[in-house]
Amino acid sequence: MKQKAFQDYYPEEFSHCYGCGRQNNHGHQIKSFWDGEESVAFFTPEPYHIAIPGFVYGGLIASLADCHGTGTASAAMYRKEGRAMDTEPALRFVTGSLHVDYLAPTPLGVPLELRGRVAEIGTKKWWWISGFRLRATCAPRPGHCCKMPDTMMAKKNKRKPRR
Amino acid sequence: MKQKAFQDYYPEEFSHCYGCGRQNNHGHQIKSFWDGEESVAFFTPEPYHIAIPGFVYGGLIASLADCHGTGTASAAMYRKEGRAMDTEPALRFVTGSLHVDYLAPTPLGVPLELRGRVAEIGTKKWWWISGFRLRATCAPRPGHCCKMPDTMMAKKNKRKPRR
Repeated sequence: MKQKAFQDYYPEEFSHCYGCGRQNNHGHQIKSFWDGEESVAFFTPEPYHIAIPGFVYGGLIASLADCHGTGTASAAMYRKEGRAMDTEPALRFVTGSLHVDYLAPTPLGVPLELRGRVAEIGTKKWWWISGFRLRATCAPRPGHCCKMPDTMMAKKNKRKPRR
Repeated sequence: MKQKAFQDYYPEEFSHCYGCGRQNNHGHQIKSFWDGEESVAFFTPEPYHIAIPGFVYGGLIASLADCHGTGTASAAMYRKEGRAMDTEPALRFVTGSLHVDYLAPTPLGVPLELRGRVAEIGTKKWWWISGFRLRATCAPRPGHCCKMPDTMMAKKNKRKPRR
């Protein structure tokens, strides 16, 4: 059986994200998985995701890091709580701080490998992700995610549980 | 006569960027202008540029900051050198470090206002931009751009000057 990605477990209401929503046909639909203590995702940019011809657009790289980070935070929180990823209440995160250093131009035409590692779990809502490696063209930097705020969760919480 | 944007001056070879290239029909095609000492750009996200329905995707915000920053760096360097933006050699920049703090969910359906300000001009290639304001949902943070590296400029430099 094919392994399900973190994003495949997102409730329907939270699966429209441009970066990772399986229901967003315009978006990137990235898929993140555990690989031991690290999370990994692969993404091959489209021919038009360029800065100049032949090189990947840095904004795309930041976008991928954003969604791989929130996905990793979600999966790690489920794991910490000993819960399956399809159980309620849904654990969804948003990025609080995103920091990408671009070390060298990233060539187009090959899959990008994103790696995430949980660096620290805060006592309340904060959740830190160490960073990302993208074919050695981008340096890892700490960023953080936080639980989705009530203003975004409100619509979801008003609905009846799925089970 | 309508004011030309920074990006409208980019040479043909450098106007394919997904974020700001006027020749990239898939991309955002952002347009940046001077407003006194600040640079400004407005961008209205598409309905599918969402994190969850009703809120803008953070990766898009990072992408806009990326291109508004490089455009501002280019325009500021031309201004410092007292040159018109359509003169050779072209001054094009890439982002070296991008840092966005997300303070609150950004609502969809209204134009986003990006603001940039040059904080510091280095003695060699470094060029600092103070940050961006996006309807008070994102905090300004210093980022920096650097001149486009030779590996990316090579193709351009091998060509004969346009005039």
